[in-house]
Amino acid sequence: MLYQKVLNGDKRSLARLMRFVDDRVIGYEKEMKQILPKCGKAHFIGITGSPGAGKSTLTNELIKHYRKLGKRVGVVAIDPTSPFSEGAILGDRIRMAEHSQDDGVFIRSVATRGHLGGLSSSAVEIALLLDAAGYDIIIIETVGVGQDEVEISTVSDTCIVVTVPGLGDDIQAIKAGILEIADIFVVNKADKDEANRTARDLEIMLELSQKKDWIPPIIKTIATKGEGIFELVENIENHKAKFKPKHSERLFFVAKQYLIEKIEKKIFSYDKIIDKLNINGDPYSLVEKIFDSLTYEIDFTD
Amino acid sequence: MLYQKVLNGDKRSLARLMRFVDDRVIGYEKEMKQILPKCGKAHFIGITGSPGAGKSTLTNELIKHYRKLGKRVGVVAIDPTSPFSEGAILGDRIRMAEHSQDDGVFIRSVATRGHLGGLSSSAVEIALLLDAAGYDIIIIETVGVGQDEVEISTVSDTCIVVTVPGLGDDIQAIKAGILEIADIFVVNKADKDEANRTARDLEIMLELSQKKDWIPPIIKTIATKGEGIFELVENIENHKAKFKPKHSERLFFVAKQYLIEKIEKKIFSYDKIIDKLNINGDPYSLVEKIFDSLTYEIDFTD
Repeated sequence: MLYQKVLNGDKRSLARLMRFVDDRVIGYEKEMKQILPKCGKAHFIGITGSPGAGKSTLTNELIKHYRKLGKRVGVVAIDPTSPFSEGAILGDRIRMAEHSQDDGVFIRSVATRGHLGGLSSSAVEIALLLDAAGYDIIIIETVGVGQDEVEISTVSDTCIVVTVPGLGDDIQAIKAGILEIADIFVVNKADKDEANRTARDLEIMLELSQKKDWIPPIIKTIATKGEGIFELVENIENHKAKFKPKHSERLFFVAKQYLIEKIEKKIFSYDKIIDKLNINGDPYSLVEKIFDSLTYEIDFTD
Repeated sequence: MLYQKVLNGDKRSLARLMRFVDDRVIGYEKEMKQILPKCGKAHFIGITGSPGAGKSTLTNELIKHYRKLGKRVGVVAIDPTSPFSEGAILGDRIRMAEHSQDDGVFIRSVATRGHLGGLSSSAVEIALLLDAAGYDIIIIETVGVGQDEVEISTVSDTCIVVTVPGLGDDIQAIKAGILEIADIFVVNKADKDEANRTARDLEIMLELSQKKDWIPPIIKTIATKGEGIFELVENIENHKAKFKPKHSERLFFVAKQYLIEKIEKKIFSYDKIIDKLNINGDPYSLVEKIFDSLTYEIDFTD
């Protein structure tokens, strides 16, 4: 079994198991069953925001900073690549280069898989593997707006939303959507003219929001120059100190996705369903028929 | 029942049923069961791409153009707003203003709902309602990268990916991911300096891709000036002529989401699951227990 080596921090075995998990290689669950109960020590940082906001650069700066503090850092970079493309692997190579010599850093890219959309289950499982392997800080970097962001906030202990001056009208809608999910706002590329206006816009929206237990700070950074990173880390630590980790939520996320996977694979066969839909064109009655035929009995006592 | 009025094209009833569907008001399925079998006439156009690419402006130009051709146009705008915010409604007001006097246009915004991520089921159901209500062209506009885009391509007959010059490094990853899902590429804001380089980048990536049955054209537009829209529509029509509509795929998408909703609501209760996970920390064994307890019997004969 791989899990022993992974728990002992063997990088090669870790990478191998990550691949098994990501490709759903038969038997990966056996390993995970041994490993997940050992998780729950790391601090999970989610980094999300629009394309071109400079999230990767920011992630690299955070790695450097936490390494200086002697922390081991794992990164899961979720690239918006298709299930077919090799983009994720490419992402790896580019990012690995800078830290390839550092044994305290492990970076893994994951394609946004899964016809379920949003954050893929394997992305979270891979992040949990880094936790089990003894990395102190785990950064989940995701390119995306909307649902991806909502999910990243449910599985990360501290969720950082990176925005950037002057991305156009849509940014307004995005801001409206991210108020509930951001623990910290970063206005990157703060040397741009519109940076102050962007920060002000955020402040105004924050005043309108309902959050009482934590007012998300707005940090201006110039990631390419490493500016603002110290203040960012300070705020991450403040947030960490104030809230309990979301380990159970991460496990719940994995459980839910796993059940859906099983149901789709075993119960919901595409061809059969399509044939039926071509006849009567009514998905609701069909699903109710399937669902009513499901009976379940779960023993919650043991 | 509302469905009769909706099928007769009554806008108020249509808007009302859309709200029922989006809010999952009890009984909405009854109406949908009557309506969905009547769908399948409209051409579904998906428009996706990065924030700030000018998708809304492009959508508005397409509306104008198709109206000139005497086509009735329905739009579903999926805003990356949180389940709690009212952003989607705001989106409505802004967009409605321009076409509020035109009986041949119906625009509805939908928040990216659903903890399942990606394209929400109600977004597709609302688009199907527009189909049933007799709109000829249905535009689904979604802000997002990654999974949202993959899903929009599975439910739209012609999928347009809008990109824009100089959105930074992430754009590379996005391009890699959208090759499989784009039927047509639009390089908007084509008056920007880097427009030609962006178009060239796309051409190069297309040459590397495997698509044989259809090479996605790359259209340069300046949506704010209405430039390039005629060529865009020409290419939409070419694509439409070449491929069969994805009506069954849309119904399948709805069916799948509906089954998952039911299972989450009835079988997968958050509190119970969390309690168990807090004890043993092993989601896989828990889910297998639940799944093994499911038995199903579906009659596919009638």
